[in-house]
Amino acid sequence: MQIARVCGTVVGTHKLPSLTGVKFLLLQLVDLDGRVLPEYEVAADPVGAGIGEWVLVARGSAARQDDRSDRRPLDALVVAIIDTVSGENGRIYSKSDSY
Amino acid sequence: MQIARVCGTVVGTHKLPSLTGVKFLLLQLVDLDGRVLPEYEVAADPVGAGIGEWVLVARGSAARQDDRSDRRPLDALVVAIIDTVSGENGRIYSKSDSY
Amino acid sequence: MQIARVCGTVVGTHKLPSLTGVKFLLLQLVDLDGRVLPEYEVAADPVGAGIGEWVLVARGSAARQDDRSDRRPLDALVVAIIDTVSGENGRIYSKSDSY
Amino acid sequence: MQIARVCGTVVGTHKLPSLTGVKFLLLQLVDLDGRVLPEYEVAADPVGAGIGEWVLVARGSAARQDDRSDRRPLDALVVAIIDTVSGENGRIYSKSDSY
Amino acid sequence: MQIARVCGTVVGTHKLPSLTGVKFLLLQLVDLDGRVLPEYEVAADPVGAGIGEWVLVARGSAARQDDRSDRRPLDALVVAIIDTVSGENGRIYSKSDSY
Repeated sequence: MQIARVCGTVVGTHKLPSLTGVKFLLLQLVDLDGRVLPEYEVAADPVGAGIGEWVLVARGSAARQDDRSDRRPLDALVVAIIDTVSGENGRIYSKSDSY
Repeated sequence: MQIARVCGTVVGTHKLPSLTGVKFLLLQLVDLDGRVLPEYEVAADPVGAGIGEWVLVARGSAARQDDRSDRRPLDALVVAIIDTVSGENGRIYSKSDSY
Repeated sequence: MQIARVCGTVVGTHKLPSLTGVKFLLLQLVDLDGRVLPEYEVAADPVGAGIGEWVLVARGSAARQDDRSDRRPLDALVVAIIDTVSGENGRIYSKSDSY
Repeated sequence: MQIARVCGTVVGTHKLPSLTGVKFLLLQLVDLDGRVLPEYEVAADPVGAGIGEWVLVARGSAARQDDRSDRRPLDALVVAIIDTVSGENGRIYSKSDSY
Repeated sequence: MQIARVCGTVVGTHKLPSLTGVKFLLLQLVDLDGRVLPEYEVAADPVGAGIGEWVLVARGSAARQDDRSDRRPLDALVVAIIDTVSGENGRIYSKSDSY
């Protein structure tokens, strides 16, 4: 999985029927120094993440292992809201610090 | 999923039988500033997107989760026509603005 | 799918039994300006493409959606011989022009 | 698979139910000279690797071939703790040397 | 598939049970000019390739289409030992020339 920061939303009303009701978040990937990268993913979000939160995003067929995402044409899924990222030299990110 | 702009079509009459009737769009991937990238995908299009429209493209096995694309050798699929892309500092794209 | 140009062949007699009789083409990926890239794929070819032709190549599990490639350890498949690639400013490639 | 070095952990309490009890390690990918790269993976760890150890990480659907990871939305899995990496000019890494 | 040169081995005794008895080769990817790249794969090898040989490596779910690799957490598999790679201007590689 990759670490990403929720930075927006994507809306499209004309879509495949199986995507009805799916909310799409715009995620910027984050590097190991906590900086956002130009790389992004548009991911379905079954966990309810908000703008500015850090999340774990699973890509590929992993995005369809949730009951609600099975058989939907998804290749990216928010699987967790991140509380902490810890490296060898201490915290890289702590959700509580960001408020 | 990635955001892409429809920029053309690809036609091939000599192909695998399971691809008969499949329309292939040429999509240029778009970055978070709304600029088209050199990276592209040739994707099947079950939603009927037109030249210049922005779409969501799913890649990998996600491209075969549509009833019409199941068992076809596809690795990229247009899954939605985008109405709006919204970032933290406002709209990155609005379909209605582009007309 | 990506656009590629057939530039050669790969032969290996010592291989997994399921690959017996599979012909491997060497494909150079092509960018949107019609230039060949250093990136390549070795792909199985069920459509009979020839050297110099442009083809569509599907990658990942899509390469095993053909009856003949099912259960074979393939991650790249020629799925069509391209006749034309058309962009917003006209033809990028036409097979008939290349003769 | 890629070679990676365990450099931290990621914790998220708000996640998909199927991820309950899954431990996420932060892995830095390693190149053939034994240097850590900026590229990373957040992977589930069923083998119990510790900080500083080198591991093999499998990505994509391979990450769900373990009984405990089946049907979980995982795209990266620690599959082995590495003892030695040997190249043509000798050892690139030996776990016993690193203590 | 990609072309790669066998350059070493990876050994790990502490691993998932399904990987018992699987031999891991270290492969350096090769470009179209026959030069080895910094990019590598650690792949299972059911065909018995030796150091210095060129092989075809399949990645992703293709790595589990062999009876012996089914249900194992593998994302890279040696599927053939290469005899010749031929481009438009002649041989890029011939196994018999390399001895």
